[in-house]
Amino acid sequence: MVRPKPSMDEVVALAKRRGFIFPSSEIYGGVNGAWDYGPVGVELKRNVRAAWWRHMVELRDDVVGVDTSILMSPDVWRASGHLEHFHDLMVDCRTCKKRFRADELSGERCPSCGNATLTQPRAFHMMFKTYIGAMEDASSVAYLRPETAQGIFVDFKSIYQTGRKKPPFGVAQIGKAFRNEITPGNFIFRSREFEQMELEFFVPVQPESEGMRWFDYWVEQRHNWFLGLGIQPSRLRRHVYSGADLAHYSRATTDLEYDFPFGWGELEGIAHRASFDLQRHVDASGKDLSFFDEESKEKFLPAVIEPSLGVDRACLVFLLDAYEKEADRTVLHLHPRLAPYKTAVFPLVRNKPDIVEMAVRIERSLRPSLRTVFDDSGNVGKRYYRQDEIGTPLCVTVDYESLDRQDVTVRERDSKEQKRISVDRLASYLKHAIEPDDTAVLDSVAR
Amino acid sequence: MVRPKPSMDEVVALAKRRGFIFPSSEIYGGVNGAWDYGPVGVELKRNVRAAWWRHMVELRDDVVGVDTSILMSPDVWRASGHLEHFHDLMVDCRTCKKRFRADELSGERCPSCGNATLTQPRAFHMMFKTYIGAMEDASSVAYLRPETAQGIFVDFKSIYQTGRKKPPFGVAQIGKAFRNEITPGNFIFRSREFEQMELEFFVPVQPESEGMRWFDYWVEQRHNWFLGLGIQPSRLRRHVYSGADLAHYSRATTDLEYDFPFGWGELEGIAHRASFDLQRHVDASGKDLSFFDEESKEKFLPAVIEPSLGVDRACLVFLLDAYEKEADRTVLHLHPRLAPYKTAVFPLVRNKPDIVEMAVRIERSLRPSLRTVFDDSGNVGKRYYRQDEIGTPLCVTVDYESLDRQDVTVRERDSKEQKRISVDRLASYLKHAIEPDDTAVLDSVAR
Repeated sequence: MVRPKPSMDEVVALAKRRGFIFPSSEIYGGVNGAWDYGPVGVELKRNVRAAWWRHMVELRDDVVGVDTSILMSPDVWRASGHLEHFHDLMVDCRTCKKRFRADELSGERCPSCGNATLTQPRAFHMMFKTYIGAMEDASSVAYLRPETAQGIFVDFKSIYQTGRKKPPFGVAQIGKAFRNEITPGNFIFRSREFEQMELEFFVPVQPESEGMRWFDYWVEQRHNWFLGLGIQPSRLRRHVYSGADLAHYSRATTDLEYDFPFGWGELEGIAHRASFDLQRHVDASGKDLSFFDEESKEKFLPAVIEPSLGVDRACLVFLLDAYEKEADRTVLHLHPRLAPYKTAVFPLVRNKPDIVEMAVRIERSLRPSLRTVFDDSGNVGKRYYRQDEIGTPLCVTVDYESLDRQDVTVRERDSKEQKRISVDRLASYLKHAIEPDDTAVLDSVAR
Repeated sequence: MVRPKPSMDEVVALAKRRGFIFPSSEIYGGVNGAWDYGPVGVELKRNVRAAWWRHMVELRDDVVGVDTSILMSPDVWRASGHLEHFHDLMVDCRTCKKRFRADELSGERCPSCGNATLTQPRAFHMMFKTYIGAMEDASSVAYLRPETAQGIFVDFKSIYQTGRKKPPFGVAQIGKAFRNEITPGNFIFRSREFEQMELEFFVPVQPESEGMRWFDYWVEQRHNWFLGLGIQPSRLRRHVYSGADLAHYSRATTDLEYDFPFGWGELEGIAHRASFDLQRHVDASGKDLSFFDEESKEKFLPAVIEPSLGVDRACLVFLLDAYEKEADRTVLHLHPRLAPYKTAVFPLVRNKPDIVEMAVRIERSLRPSLRTVFDDSGNVGKRYYRQDEIGTPLCVTVDYESLDRQDVTVRERDSKEQKRISVDRLASYLKHAIEPDDTAVLDSVAR
């Protein structure tokens, strides 16, 4: 059974009300295209990053990580083609002064004021520019990286030498990127400052079938990653690029698309980029980035398969997909691995010191092994309501009977079912209910 | 016994050779003041961040986290005083064109070419400037944040309302910051792009002694955090600011200083900033950020205690402090919590399928619960050497006897001691040897 699609406004409102995501600099009127993650939002974001890193790096033996800088040499963007090609075509309305992406306009008339006063499309460069050092001139220009991938290509040789890897192997990175979008929008779907999780998986160029095999493998892996974290299968589909829609250097590209409130949109792109990126850097830097193949006794520049995902877009999808408005509550059915808190602990009442003390003791004993939160404000119904809205999978309540019986009520978020669990079994019960088993994942990722 | 101080060059060389840290964009000649973390460096950095977050957020019940944007409204920097005051005085040499920070010069003559041709000091603004949107004019100016703290102050009300906190409570953040330093240097000690871990801990203003008590508490906590992660006590000292060295708004400031190869230098600053920051934002935004005190029936703006640490500087200190050159090896005595890999698994030889298969099986069985690495290249001596240099606490070797006896050799990094451990006890043995017990920490952080 698929949950009804929420509106974007509902999810934005919940995100703000509960401390997931706020507009940046809101007390000063905000910044268009930048967002802040609040107390529970930062935990969700950290969990998304951790789940990706675990799946892509920690559970594998053929991927290493890196963390490269946002400010890079401008030569990088010259070599990659970004300086020349990374722009959008924009159109202005001479009447209302609004600005649009040319590819989002369907007619001659301004979609905002209705006048036929649109300019011709003009190129608008999407890299943020700044200057390093005291001078503001051509020699000191630098750009905020528009993607994390180039850091991997530029450091390629240092990485494979120190990581002692040979193709097939991958390099993973999580980090901020910046794009001066003409029209940021749809909440955190398209923002000017965002975070990426990118894998560059390098494969031999011969035989060619090997590259396509890895491409198919990664499409499958990435699709399964979302399903394993609870995304409803019918909300996810693949869009296979072909013909003119495929970049000239790409052997194959598939997007994972999600069924957003505004329609199907790109969630993650997986691209077979052949040796395009490394070749550009070989040409521009004059450095030899190739491997020696022991069998054929020839040097080769590996091809690369790139699954590229935005952390923020992933967070948005996990929030949208988990959201459900029921008759008496709103609940986020977040996968336990992603939930900001795994367990909330309540004393049934605030005015019975024995009960409060027991709840405090239990919460503290769980804290080192589980992300917990203590809540004693309002009545228990209100506390359930609050925890449901932030997606806490399990709530533990200490009541009058707990004192004698040394047990507690554990209430499950999705089913609202309640069980009595003895205190000495509680930690292992919660852990078992919450901690995912990575064995199946390990089998799929390890060769 | 204190380990001898290494030279910076030794540690830079090891960091590069083993894949901890490379210069950014090196194949294009580099970028002054930006660094990349390689395959083991990114794991160290992740572990430093995780250790801080665990200590400052997860193990506490009075601190919540946030993750705010790098691009903020310029009004933030007007309000905070950064636009007006955040500059360094620099001096140029008219002869050799070198540039210096005025506070680092001791005489009239250029320290580089020796000529008395220095300019008067001039102000050099340290925020990187860029433009958001299509226009490059005053209305679209934005700055890369020079610190993460302001994101916390600006979002203060949204945070405490959604986090449902009242003073005393704290807000923690880890994120990138940028300073256009005149003279970046000393490896990752002072760079232009860096990462901060900041806590803003808000306390009632009355009684005043309460603020000082929390200040002392945080100096103690932060000092102990480094000691708990293995920093040699004699390499750490406190520098207490007083008189004119204290910022006008600060009630107290103490730096934790480390004994770097170039001398004692700031590692972390802990400052009692009173209500200075919040008051500036109240004045500039016109928003009420105060709390209502139920006892006195009065509104108050909390004071704030700020422990502020650079992730990169912390990584540098952990590397420097762990480094030891012995007669026959170089070893990083990293705390197990910080070590990139917790355990390496080796087959004694590569040409005995039974041994290799057993080693592969053991490594895979450990992988879900420990960060492991498999190594079968070179002889065992070389593998120990390599693991010692990246600080792996324990190495597991499968040899001929392992097949019959179902046990392995576990070799400890610091003592080089070797023990035979049976395979069925191995996971719990390693876990016990490596996983720190957080009970003592929990006692010190929970109220």
